[in-house]
Amino acid sequence: MPAISTKGRQMPASPIRKLVPYAEAARARGVEVLHLNIGQPDIRTPEVALEAIRHLDRTVIEYSHSAGFESYRRGLAAYYAGHGMALTHEQIIVTNGGSEALLFGMMACFEPGDELIIPEPYYANYNSFALAAGVRVVPVRSTIQEGFALPAISAFEALITPRTKGILICNPGNPTGYLYSRAELETLRAIVLKHDLYLFADEVYREFCYDGATHVSALSLEGLDQHAVLVDSVSKRYSMCGARVGAFITRNAELLATVLKFAQARLSPPTFGQIASEAALRTPQAYFQEVIDEYRQRRDILVDGLNAIPGVTCPKPKGAFYCVAELPIDDADGFCQWLLESFQHEGATVMMAPCSGFYADPASGRRQVRLAYVLEKEKLARAVRCLGHALERYPGRLKAHQVAASAR
Amino acid sequence: MPAISTKGRQMPASPIRKLVPYAEAARARGVEVLHLNIGQPDIRTPEVALEAIRHLDRTVIEYSHSAGFESYRRGLAAYYAGHGMALTHEQIIVTNGGSEALLFGMMACFEPGDELIIPEPYYANYNSFALAAGVRVVPVRSTIQEGFALPAISAFEALITPRTKGILICNPGNPTGYLYSRAELETLRAIVLKHDLYLFADEVYREFCYDGATHVSALSLEGLDQHAVLVDSVSKRYSMCGARVGAFITRNAELLATVLKFAQARLSPPTFGQIASEAALRTPQAYFQEVIDEYRQRRDILVDGLNAIPGVTCPKPKGAFYCVAELPIDDADGFCQWLLESFQHEGATVMMAPCSGFYADPASGRRQVRLAYVLEKEKLARAVRCLGHALERYPGRLKAHQVAASAR
Repeated sequence: MPAISTKGRQMPASPIRKLVPYAEAARARGVEVLHLNIGQPDIRTPEVALEAIRHLDRTVIEYSHSAGFESYRRGLAAYYAGHGMALTHEQIIVTNGGSEALLFGMMACFEPGDELIIPEPYYANYNSFALAAGVRVVPVRSTIQEGFALPAISAFEALITPRTKGILICNPGNPTGYLYSRAELETLRAIVLKHDLYLFADEVYREFCYDGATHVSALSLEGLDQHAVLVDSVSKRYSMCGARVGAFITRNAELLATVLKFAQARLSPPTFGQIASEAALRTPQAYFQEVIDEYRQRRDILVDGLNAIPGVTCPKPKGAFYCVAELPIDDADGFCQWLLESFQHEGATVMMAPCSGFYADPASGRRQVRLAYVLEKEKLARAVRCLGHALERYPGRLKAHQVAASAR
Repeated sequence: MPAISTKGRQMPASPIRKLVPYAEAARARGVEVLHLNIGQPDIRTPEVALEAIRHLDRTVIEYSHSAGFESYRRGLAAYYAGHGMALTHEQIIVTNGGSEALLFGMMACFEPGDELIIPEPYYANYNSFALAAGVRVVPVRSTIQEGFALPAISAFEALITPRTKGILICNPGNPTGYLYSRAELETLRAIVLKHDLYLFADEVYREFCYDGATHVSALSLEGLDQHAVLVDSVSKRYSMCGARVGAFITRNAELLATVLKFAQARLSPPTFGQIASEAALRTPQAYFQEVIDEYRQRRDILVDGLNAIPGVTCPKPKGAFYCVAELPIDDADGFCQWLLESFQHEGATVMMAPCSGFYADPASGRRQVRLAYVLEKEKLARAVRCLGHALERYPGRLKAHQVAASAR
């Protein structure tokens, strides 16, 4: 038979989805699986978006413009204006989710072998898009001890080579929930300008900031019109992950023209999803206030609960709806699989994403897991209790002196 | 400013969409533009698909499985069984249109620099996906004189090198409308097996065969389980281009597992589009009979009309809803632009796709255009008349002896 490509062999399986067969088997045995592994919220999609779909008055479901419906792009420009970003609709290309925006952006900006610096731990699928585009991910380590703050400027400078062409941040961060301050973004701005790099900012969790913190967009930084790329998506904002509608946004005209060619090749983003997304722009502010309040309560239940378990460390995030916890275990991949295969507490078990896939070197995250707080509070409280019992019984549990030794 | 990548610079603009700004300007001047440039049918989407969308009962628009909803994949397997292809739902990965299936397939099967043989003229966007994957397209010429039949086996053999890893066909063909016979497919089967190549078959126009001709799928050929890849889409079948739902299908388990990793990276295909596509599987057979009859009548009006214009040659296609015509002109790119910029007849002009983008060497198609017969008959008849007048007035019109000379 013909061979599989090198890229195909190297493409990582999703760390978020690779345990799915074990979860299916657990369910088949009658065990309830509490899904903390995936950022699939149970929050209702705004009624205004669902109503637009239910009142569909088209009789032919046509392609849209390759950059997306103009009316939707004009609506998006108004949305960004409301968030302090001056943009025209021509600076926005609607994509098949944020995923496609990342892939197109990497292909349009980077040569195979070029280096892209990403603070780690980072969203696992960045590895996949980088591999598809032939880009080399160079991680710059943020640590759980410092709550995953932006690494020092010296740490970036130490990694810059002639092949370095960009920096990619996720803000607020997946998987850490870390929200960059304006000062941290100004630091990035200085590095980007000094070395003439692209700055990709994945800001799909923009709306979800807690404790009075405000989000600062990369597109609001001075002097980065040619450098800054915003990756966006409606998936989390409107709890509409399945719409598959994102956006590639920049003020760099040459880059826009280039990405449009990639967009033309795949014809158009989805029409139904765009109809829902355009309507969702009219979502009342009360919806977000309610949702943000709900997430904040969920965060507190999960993060406070985790930190109350002996040996567990989990910085409290200021944004998004994820957290990274360090557990007193030998190996998170093994632990997450064991939870699904060999454990239950009161008829339920917990599914989490091992952090190995969120680091360039899988060994770095071997004691960490990512947890999404997208389930209702009662389930989160049960998940915490379940996890506490599991850590008492897990054969690979580390003793206190082992935890201390491994942290060194 | 940071540089654009080589890939980004080389990515071709869509030959189908690159004239859009001229069409917009024509419309702004009050000229009706008859769109024969793009395969966007005016046929109604089946009511059963629209009804499923209008009766949406979900309150959270969630991701689906990365390979698509299992219920939809099971439905698709039954659909293929009805077309003589035995498949399980696990051999089907639902994609963002046929486009994504082509991109994933090329990335999973071919190394950068590998060669993919494609009978030309071919669907222009194959160049874009090949460029994105780093694959070198090697064209094997089919000629208008032979009605775009499959080139002789010797023509393929002459092109095969150690880097040849696959053959890609579109059947029925875009842009030619050519429908491969079983004998032609058996020829391809023999080449593929002899040289251990992948055979990619883009069969998105399967339903549209005329004059009693029947479609033979690459997946129905014996002994190609490890070699054959079917690229499919609901776009044309159900006149639902905007749904962005396609499929990557193969019986090669290792290839399926590889493509699933690419699919996991982009999370899921669109939920709304899948709901519409699953419902569309219940489209009554009468719908297809009516649509096929309509397209056949349109084909006859367009192709017979074109052949009645002095100096125009257009083989009558047996499938899809495109034809390629050779015109007595100096340059089709210039002619198509002139039609939009400088011509009108009774308030209307015609938009076509110049064939330069459908050949690996743009010069090869310089006198040819692709026309889609996706508009109602009255418009097609007007388009033919309009084109006849335009050819009389076009400054770059060739005289008979020039046409004969250029055909040599």
